[in-house]
Amino acid sequence: MAHENWTIHPVADASLEREIIARLNNLTKPVGSLGLLEELALRYLLCKRRVDAPLSMMQIFTLAGDHGITDEKITPYPSEVTYQMVLNMVRGGAAISVMCRKAGIGCTVVDMGVKGAFHEQPGLLIRKIAPGTRNFSKEPAMSEKECLKALDVGSQLAAGSGCDLLGIGEMGIGNTSSASALYSLLLDVDPLETVGIGTGSVGVMLERKKQAIMAGVSLHKKAASGSPLEALRRVGGFEIAGLTGMILAAAESRIPVVVDGFVASAAALAAIRMEPETRGYLFFAHASAEAYHETFLKNEGIRPILSLDMRLGEGTGSLLAMQIIAQAMECYHRMATFQNAGVSGKEE
Amino acid sequence: MAHENWTIHPVADASLEREIIARLNNLTKPVGSLGLLEELALRYLLCKRRVDAPLSMMQIFTLAGDHGITDEKITPYPSEVTYQMVLNMVRGGAAISVMCRKAGIGCTVVDMGVKGAFHEQPGLLIRKIAPGTRNFSKEPAMSEKECLKALDVGSQLAAGSGCDLLGIGEMGIGNTSSASALYSLLLDVDPLETVGIGTGSVGVMLERKKQAIMAGVSLHKKAASGSPLEALRRVGGFEIAGLTGMILAAAESRIPVVVDGFVASAAALAAIRMEPETRGYLFFAHASAEAYHETFLKNEGIRPILSLDMRLGEGTGSLLAMQIIAQAMECYHRMATFQNAGVSGKEE
Repeated sequence: MAHENWTIHPVADASLEREIIARLNNLTKPVGSLGLLEELALRYLLCKRRVDAPLSMMQIFTLAGDHGITDEKITPYPSEVTYQMVLNMVRGGAAISVMCRKAGIGCTVVDMGVKGAFHEQPGLLIRKIAPGTRNFSKEPAMSEKECLKALDVGSQLAAGSGCDLLGIGEMGIGNTSSASALYSLLLDVDPLETVGIGTGSVGVMLERKKQAIMAGVSLHKKAASGSPLEALRRVGGFEIAGLTGMILAAAESRIPVVVDGFVASAAALAAIRMEPETRGYLFFAHASAEAYHETFLKNEGIRPILSLDMRLGEGTGSLLAMQIIAQAMECYHRMATFQNAGVSGKEE
Repeated sequence: MAHENWTIHPVADASLEREIIARLNNLTKPVGSLGLLEELALRYLLCKRRVDAPLSMMQIFTLAGDHGITDEKITPYPSEVTYQMVLNMVRGGAAISVMCRKAGIGCTVVDMGVKGAFHEQPGLLIRKIAPGTRNFSKEPAMSEKECLKALDVGSQLAAGSGCDLLGIGEMGIGNTSSASALYSLLLDVDPLETVGIGTGSVGVMLERKKQAIMAGVSLHKKAASGSPLEALRRVGGFEIAGLTGMILAAAESRIPVVVDGFVASAAALAAIRMEPETRGYLFFAHASAEAYHETFLKNEGIRPILSLDMRLGEGTGSLLAMQIIAQAMECYHRMATFQNAGVSGKEE
């Protein structure tokens, strides 16, 4: 199993960085007073390798898939909710649909492997690998072929998006279990640390969730050792592998990606482990309320843009963070300079 | 000096709160998974005392004024920058103008007491009390009449705004000194704790700033004791008193207010000290990078919506937080319920 032809350029460029900072410092505001917004603008422009790169076209992709691990009765919502929520998203009733409409940002929902069959319809792409993964507590979630196909589908979505900036999210009953197992395998962390309540698994259900993830991690640990791709195949999901593929291809095309919460970050971690330079192209939208996410961000030295105790997924955190990045770029491009506004600079 | 006819109703209403939470819990998402957004929606609706209150009309008011304390040479930018930045805002080149335009939210700049004379023009209201306050390190910044007039102007702006939600910001070279002194007087905190770099006062300039604020606080401490209004008059500014008036009148009219950073929060603190029930109507937009702001928020038990290391003022933090509140209300009003979307609820 191999897909090693990603060519991801480092974002660092000292000379370009100096040029961008000089522009930022010439805008009509005290130096550095836009705080993180200035850093976001700088990072965006370094990704684009252009001092004057616009930010016009933004898009959210919400990838959906079902998970065999739900056989273990580890979620309070039945598996059919994945299918129902995809329809809800496409019809405009889900949180991500409502927020995207308000923000004027498009949302494309992608069936990567939902159990039920959809009709083709606007806003929904059908790229079903299979109707749900297998139960990773007992066997690998995906075959090699399935996992590579999911990566390729994601890769094509990103490369063909025509976007300046991508936001990614997911929907899939059971996928926080998959994400927890993936963190545990990739970071060698006890599942008891990476597991959280997900959509609301508490009490005996949470105990079952822990047991299922522990069983899966211990089953796949040896085979997945040293291979992030193999870890992804064994405990990931179609939507998670799709996101990993999107991230790798986006980074290759210099399209920065705004990563949502707990599940999307697990996909991002897999991408980073496969190609470390990918990290420069990622904006982590928010610190999720899902237990392990904040620890993960802290350990990796990542400062999320927002911290709103959200744990919904779908790309909702990405969308809110994209509004902030868009404002940062708007300031960069549209604010007056001290010279053209006739505003006095600092006195000596 | 007295203006005690504010009638501000408590926002708390247990029965309405239950009704709002029931609606939130019926939206197609795991219970509580929108995190702080759900709390923002709840608080907004409690302010409005209506389970179905819309959020349509939003507006930013940026109040500007000059400060006599700049005679002490405590800022790197000359006083004329207040005037120049007001023009820059009106012409669309300032950060707040750029962000408001992008967000589709109106911005009204108000001359509360800038040194130069403006022509009337769209987007600018001239409500000049006087061309700058007096040097509070040597005498009271405002006369009683001036301070009451500034409160009244602010009050009329808010009451006549026709807004569902107001964002407030300020511009005024020297006004972080004024705000520091106000925090020190109202909270009985050493000025060495409340002072920060403002637009960029460092080294000997920062030392002069500290000395000036300490002199002012010690000069006015006794007279201002027990009277927030007197503290405001003695060390505040026209724009700060205007914001205090806006906040009090907005709360009286059940219009919640999104408070910007360090300076606007000092105005809010004065309002809260005058009328404690005001606090229920306030959303604190962000934790500013200006030194004392985070400590203030923490001590008061306030969780800001954002934390982006911004320290620009103008209402820029308010604007970004209003985009979040708007999304929270959009979700509240437009998301499908489990019933109407045909999504299965939790299994037992």
